[in-house]
Parts: sequence; C-alpha cells; structure tokens
Amino acid sequence: MLGNFVYYNPTKLYFGDEAQKNLTAALAPFGPKVLLTYGGGSIKTNGVYDDVIKALQEAGKEVVELPGVMPNPTLAKLEEGCALAKAQNVDFILAVGGGSTIDYAKGVAASAWYDGDAWQNFWIEKNEPAADQRVLPVGAVLTMAGTGSEMNGGSVITNTEQKLKIGKVFGSRLMPKFAILNPKYTFSLPVTQMVAGIYDIMSHIMEQYFSGDDDSTSNYVAEGLMRSLIVSSRAAVKNPQDYEARSNIMWTATWALNTFIGKGKTQDWMVHMIGQAIGAYTNATHGLTLSGVSPAYYRFIMKFGQARFARFAQVVWDIPAEGKDEETLAKAGIDALEAWIKEIGAVANISVLGVTEDMLEGITAATVLGGGYKLMTKADVLTVLKNAL
Amino acid sequence: MLGNFVYYNPTKLYFGDEAQKNLTAALAPFGPKVLLTYGGGSIKTNGVYDDVIKALQEAGKEVVELPGVMPNPTLAKLEEGCALAKAQNVDFILAVGGGSTIDYAKGVAASAWYDGDAWQNFWIEKNEPAADQRVLPVGAVLTMAGTGSEMNGGSVITNTEQKLKIGKVFGSRLMPKFAILNPKYTFSLPVTQMVAGIYDIMSHIMEQYFSGDDDSTSNYVAEGLMRSLIVSSRAAVKNPQDYEARSNIMWTATWALNTFIGKGKTQDWMVHMIGQAIGAYTNATHGLTLSGVSPAYYRFIMKFGQARFARFAQVVWDIPAEGKDEETLAKAGIDALEAWIKEIGAVANISVLGVTEDMLEGITAATVLGGGYKLMTKADVLTVLKNAL
Repeated sequence: MLGNFVYYNPTKLYFGDEAQKNLTAALAPFGPKVLLTYGGGSIKTNGVYDDVIKALQEAGKEVVELPGVMPNPTLAKLEEGCALAKAQNVDFILAVGGGSTIDYAKGVAASAWYDGDAWQNFWIEKNEPAADQRVLPVGAVLTMAGTGSEMNGGSVITNTEQKLKIGKVFGSRLMPKFAILNPKYTFSLPVTQMVAGIYDIMSHIMEQYFSGDDDSTSNYVAEGLMRSLIVSSRAAVKNPQDYEARSNIMWTATWALNTFIGKGKTQDWMVHMIGQAIGAYTNATHGLTLSGVSPAYYRFIMKFGQARFARFAQVVWDIPAEGKDEETLAKAGIDALEAWIKEIGAVANISVLGVTEDMLEGITAATVLGGGYKLMTKADVLTVLKNAL
Repeated sequence: MLGNFVYYNPTKLYFGDEAQKNLTAALAPFGPKVLLTYGGGSIKTNGVYDDVIKALQEAGKEVVELPGVMPNPTLAKLEEGCALAKAQNVDFILAVGGGSTIDYAKGVAASAWYDGDAWQNFWIEKNEPAADQRVLPVGAVLTMAGTGSEMNGGSVITNTEQKLKIGKVFGSRLMPKFAILNPKYTFSLPVTQMVAGIYDIMSHIMEQYFSGDDDSTSNYVAEGLMRSLIVSSRAAVKNPQDYEARSNIMWTATWALNTFIGKGKTQDWMVHMIGQAIGAYTNATHGLTLSGVSPAYYRFIMKFGQARFARFAQVVWDIPAEGKDEETLAKAGIDALEAWIKEIGAVANISVLGVTEDMLEGITAATVLGGGYKLMTKADVLTVLKNAL
C-alpha cells in the first residue's frame, strides 16, 4: 500500500432477501418530504414499488414522484429533477433502480441548490459542492447489480447535445446514506441486463488491477473478487434465480467500486473512457460497451505490463504457468477473459453494438485520455477501436 | 452471501507515511478536553508521542494523560480510566498504541458514564450502552498492526481475579471515529511483536474462513487477504523496515477484522476462545497463543470441513491438487500453515508459552465453547490443548 490516502465510506448497507424491512427505519432520520425517483416502471410490475411505497408510508413521508430516469441519464432529465426538487423543497431523494437511477439521484442532490451551470461546474470542471451549498441526502434501493453506485459518490450524466457522457466522483457528502441490497430484487431483470452488469463489475475490478507493479494488498483482494464473480456469473447465467450466485454478484458489485480495491495504487480507467464515448454515440448498454472494448484494449497494452497479465492468468483463471513463458501466459489470460465474455453472453466486439467505421474518429475525439501501463494517445485509442470492431 | 446482515463502518482511515498530518483536522470536530491514553511509553522514544502532542496542541486541545495500558488491559486499569475520564469530564479519548490500547479506550468510552457494574453489563452480559447513556468518542493512532481494533467495535478486557479474558464487540457508536495508520509507526516494534501481530491477522481471517460450505464472496476476499499477508510477512521478517510489506500488513490487519470478510457467513472463533483462556493463565502475547493452538485445533476439526481445508491448500498455499485426494490436500494445507508459523518465528505449540499440563483443566474451564465445522465440547478443547502442548 504505497502512497497516502483516506478511506471513508459511511454508507450503511442492508443486505439480504429481507433487506427492505429496514427501509422504514433507515428513512426515519431524514425530513418528511421524499423525492422518489425511478426508471421505466419495471418496479411497478415486480413488487419493488409496492414494498417501497409501503415503507415510505410507514415512515410517514410525503412522496413526490419522479419517474422516467433513462439508462444513460441525460442533462435534460437532470435539469427536470433539479427543478422539481427545488420547487417541492424535498428533504431527501430515494433512488429505486440500478446505477443510472442512483447516479441520477446524486446528480440532482448535488445540483438542485447550486446556482449556476451544474454540468459545467460538477461534471466538466469536477468541482465539489461548496461547504455552504445545500446538498440533499440520498438513499438507494438497488434493483440491478453492476455499477456500485449504491456505495460511492459516482454520478455519470450524458449531455446528448454535446455527445458527452461524463462521470463525476463526489466525496462522502454525496454517497448514499443507506442502500437496500436485496438480491431477489434483481431476479426479474432481463438476462442481457444481468450479464451487462456482471461485465461492468469485472471491468471495474480490472481497471483498478491492471496498473502499477508494486505489491499491494488491493491487488490480492481484487483477485479474490474476480474469482468469486467468475464462479457466480457462470451459475447465474445457468439459473438466474440462483440466490447465492445473484447475492455474490450484488455484493461483488458494491465492493468493486466503493474505493476499497483502488486504495494505495494507480488505476487505469481507459476502458470506461472509451466505453462511455461509445455509449454517447450509440446509447448501447454500458456494460456491453466495456466488454466490447476490453479484449482489444488489454491486448494493446499487454506488453507494457506483461507480468501483471501473467499473474492474472494464473491467479484469476487458474492457468498453469508450467511450460509457458511470461508472454504466452499473459496472452492466455486475456484469451480466457474473452472466452468468458462470450460464455456468459456478453459481446467481445463493438460492431454488434452498432458502432461503424465512420464513427471511430468521433468516438476517439470524445474519449478522455489517460492510462496505466501505457499512457494512451488519440492514435492509440483509434487503433484499439479498429481492433475492437 | 446467504443470510441477512447490515454492514456499517463509518471509521475514517488516514493511511500512509504522512497520515499523522491529518490528526489535527481529524480532532477538530470534537470537544476541547482529550484523554490521551497509551501503553508503556515506547511512543516517547520513537517520535510518535511528539507527533501526537504537536497535533493536539495545533488543534487547541487540553490534554489529560492516561499512560500505562498493559498488553492485556485489566479490569482494574479500566476502572482507573473510567474514574479519570469522569472526574475530568473529557470530551474525547485518543488511543495511541496497538490493539490493547484501542480496546481499552473503547472500554473506558463505554463504561465511564455507565452507572453500574460495567464488567458484568458489557463483557459478561454483552449489553450495548443504552441509547440515552453517554458514550465518549474515540480516535486511534495505531503503532502495531494486528488486532484490527482501529476499525471495529471490539474491546477485550481481562479480569485478573477471575482469570477471565473476554471480548465484547460494540456497535458503530464505539467504533473509532478516525484512525491514523502510518506503517512507519510500527517500524520500532520488536520483531517478535510484529510476528505476533501477523499471526493475529492470519487467525482473524482463518476464523471467519473455516466455517460453512456455501459459496460466499467473503471466502474469496479472505483468500486474497491471506495470500497478501503471507507474501508480506516473509518480506517483513527478512527486512522489518520494508515499507511496502509493513504497509500491506497494516492494511490487511484492518480489513481482516472490520466485519467485512465475515459478512453473510458463519464463523468459528474457537482459536481465539482457547487463546484468550491461555492468555488469562499465562499473560502470553495474544498472537502467539493463537499460533500455538492453531495447528492442533485445525487438525482436530479438519475432517468435519475437509473440502474447505483442501481449498485452503490450493488457493492460499498454491499446493497443486493433482495426484492428491481431498484428505491429503487438506492435511498439506495445515502442514503449510504450521511451516509458515515456524518460518516467520511464531510458535506452533503452547508449552513454549509457559503452559503446563496442570493448567489444562483450568484453561479448558475458562474457554467459552462454540465452533464451526464441529461444535466443541470441553473434552474436545482438552484434547486440542493436549495435542498443542
């Protein structure tokens, strides 16, 4: 654990098939007027909405509804939510849904009482709300495992006019105060969405793992989470009603991106940067933009961090090292990753997401540069995109 | 992740070789009068005391000193601290030391304003402080890695008259508000103390790992932590000034016992129960009582949870499974554990700690029963103790 850092994550997690029974008590410390935000309405058919409304009633809350949060929440939708939160002077925002809905709730929580251009201030310039600016507390009821938004300060918003999908990571003020994690709430999700979430988790872990050459405990924990996710993903694809597998996936998602496994080490978020640019162009499901780019990206950077890729092959995929040189072993690890992507039904290239050759220049231009083993140039990104087609 | 649970750990961790620079700011939210508690005075020779006093002065605090916390803090010492905290009406307790000192601070924090028999109420009956009882906030500056007390509610107190060493786990009210984790603060520790701490960490992980046969993400994370600890322990024993190794050990200690890796699974704390009974009889170093008992204990219960022990051999110790039946593999894992205990300079039996045959009945009587793969009887404990001599 080289480097200095702060770990502080005060989100209270209620986990299990009866987790929602804690919602009334969890809401108690907050004010009476609750902005209830959710997505397309699937929660009204699977029973989650009824559970939530019952808890809100038992807690004596006045509810203002804000439905219609889309998979990649837009700036226009953010502005709608801010206007409503302010006009109704709500005390609390309860997000019921997956990462998009929770991301959205945090965006509204930060922006509603900000006087100025919230997009410019929070997402473009990455500023935090000023200490004296009012920020609304957020709670979450999770219905899809993947983004980890339930226990972090992340909020990804898409500016459709500018074709920009940008993530902001707020500090602890914007982390959910609590999250209800009931694995059964994810059972009614279409399998393709489940698989997209699984790959999002895997990518979060890999993007923290594939950087640096120091011996950090964080890497060993990351390997443990990946091993668990791989086992559970196979079980869940076979039987999406496998509670144990779905619960492991949900728990892995939370810990993949609550800052824990990135502590004390460098990270490389290029797969997300490229994936988000693809998402802004195609509106493709987030997790699939990541799986579509990953094999090409990791093959491109492999030679700059070969030892870590060889370790990945051995520890995560149980590939024996005997008789293989480091390069062969490293390649075998990425091959195993690609095979697993196909096995669980995710996509291993981007053309199936609707990306065409003529989009590549635009996607490259929209990609925020960074890197780990290799600092990426625009030309590098273009090469990766061509290889990923 | 079977079962329902709550995860809530709001302790703020400042980690790194400059972590102490955050102490002044960390103290700011709390009242002006600080009870500063520490152990035998080693912090006065290694510079830690000076750093802490400087931060307290910069924060404008009035300091009441309470030195002399012993390795196994006694009830008599607890009562002394409670009387002082109450008489001086302190606002905050700052513990500077290892787990004993932090455990002690939490004990005083819970007990100082309790009207009644604190030992009976908190440690024997395991009650929590009533909601309207005053509890003092605690902060920690860690100088020894091992117990994990810096990020949990645990507090072990020894009643020397009754020869009872009992741990209480308080809820989030008694968790430290913050902890300063500077790996360099552990550099001046004698190597035997470092090794005892390393084994304490390993035991915390194993006691959560060796129970249950469900497929839980917690087990995979535990394996990652053990793999990291083994690598770092070998480096630290070779060179105790290896910052990277000492920092991994410190971080592993915190996460081994902050409730994370035990979530959603059964646990088996018999090694601690037996070790604590030995500690009450011999005043031996805590971590060595655990290493002295572990090989005999795990060999005793192995056949009741053989598959997990075989997995331990493969994943944690990289022992190839080829050509071995499950029992052989399971045994090889415990053999590897015992060899590592000796390699790092811990003890693999209890006679070297001063335990003699005539004590075994008394230690058995003082051992709180429990178990995981095997519910232990008093006769079982006696057998384990005889085998561990």
